[in-house]
Amino acid sequence: MRNIRMVISYVGTSYHGFQTQPIGNTVQDVLEQAIVVLTGEKVNITASGRTDAGVHARGQVINFLTSSPIPVHRWALALNSRLPDDISVLRADEVPLDFHASYSAKRKTYRYSIDTNKFADIFERYYRFHYPMPLRLPEMRAALAKLVGQHDFTSFASQRSTKRTHTRTVISARLDESEGKLDLFITGDGFLYNMVRIIVGTLLRVGEGKWNVDDVVRILAAKDRTKAGPTAMAHGLMLWEVEYDD
Amino acid sequence: MRNIRMVISYVGTSYHGFQTQPIGNTVQDVLEQAIVVLTGEKVNITASGRTDAGVHARGQVINFLTSSPIPVHRWALALNSRLPDDISVLRADEVPLDFHASYSAKRKTYRYSIDTNKFADIFERYYRFHYPMPLRLPEMRAALAKLVGQHDFTSFASQRSTKRTHTRTVISARLDESEGKLDLFITGDGFLYNMVRIIVGTLLRVGEGKWNVDDVVRILAAKDRTKAGPTAMAHGLMLWEVEYDD
Repeated sequence: MRNIRMVISYVGTSYHGFQTQPIGNTVQDVLEQAIVVLTGEKVNITASGRTDAGVHARGQVINFLTSSPIPVHRWALALNSRLPDDISVLRADEVPLDFHASYSAKRKTYRYSIDTNKFADIFERYYRFHYPMPLRLPEMRAALAKLVGQHDFTSFASQRSTKRTHTRTVISARLDESEGKLDLFITGDGFLYNMVRIIVGTLLRVGEGKWNVDDVVRILAAKDRTKAGPTAMAHGLMLWEVEYDD
Repeated sequence: MRNIRMVISYVGTSYHGFQTQPIGNTVQDVLEQAIVVLTGEKVNITASGRTDAGVHARGQVINFLTSSPIPVHRWALALNSRLPDDISVLRADEVPLDFHASYSAKRKTYRYSIDTNKFADIFERYYRFHYPMPLRLPEMRAALAKLVGQHDFTSFASQRSTKRTHTRTVISARLDESEGKLDLFITGDGFLYNMVRIIVGTLLRVGEGKWNVDDVVRILAAKDRTKAGPTAMAHGLMLWEVEYDD
């Protein structure tokens, strides 16, 4: 058996998230089906993490075991010719058998994109959450800085989270702005379910002046999901990059 | 009667171009229908210029006469609530009765976008022509510079052009590159039918090394469409901005 790793990109708009589920129509289903067509072999894809319905990926990482002899440099082109145009394999390589796209991941980066202009840029309408409000960027950036570091992020995790511990390290975070468009880039050693979207929902309240930096410190310390802001819309979120030690 | 001017943006992917035609499903049809629903009045929209099927607009300018008393600051929001999400009114103002979106235009800027990476960025797949080839950018830029100024652009006009004169002035042009993505911005006092797309098709041949700067000078002087390169794909083109004297 060989262990194949791939970096893939997908537009989440038309899918019920990454991971296979009874309702069907997931990115995983489509990928596994394309691999069956290519190799004649049913594989079981492992991703660096699932993404929810509507969430996009620029650089999702997956791996799977296969006995196919297809040379690794042929996989991307061969699969792309069999995939719909909203899913793309960017590269493929062969990795040791103990490589696991999720357990081996060291850092992940997400981007969350917001359009604060009165009328949304229609060319980014599926990727950028339209929130036409004046926002206090300095306060948002100061609040964001309070989340960097190792913390118990229970306040910023879905109550459906089943993780044993909610302690995670946010390694870096920045909020870019250009012509009324905001892009939050946040890198961490791992993220809890809905964590980036709840951080964004909370930062938007800070931006609107409903909360201050001190409120965010208080929310973080509370370890209580009900204290934080709402979960921001899925379509503004993109899994940007997953990093490994190699 | 009042003369209303609007700046509009549209994703051209789903339309048979801007201008009304027998086959239907044009941007003009959809806009005029939304105005009828809003005002009860049939209007006749004039655009700064038509755009072909699949071509996009970031800042198309239109005008029309109406007797509707709706205040000008209400038009954009009122129409956007009645338009599909791939057409958007960015702003509206009232202009003198002799304003004409096409005849009054002083300068137009188009953008043409190319993705030279092996695998296309799927998030821009409807806006950026995928041309996965290594290109000689310095030569392309040198050739582009030869087109700046006042010239007879017959070699770069569709043979279906019905214009009396093919002399136009390219005021400025630049070719940006970032991570394998090229964006040509070209500003002129007017453009002939397919002119930007033929310029791009010609520059691509220069980029591939099939032609040199001298060939482009020769092509321009020939005033013969058959000497220039092919017409590049419509979906990479976007009407970027139209400027008026006010």
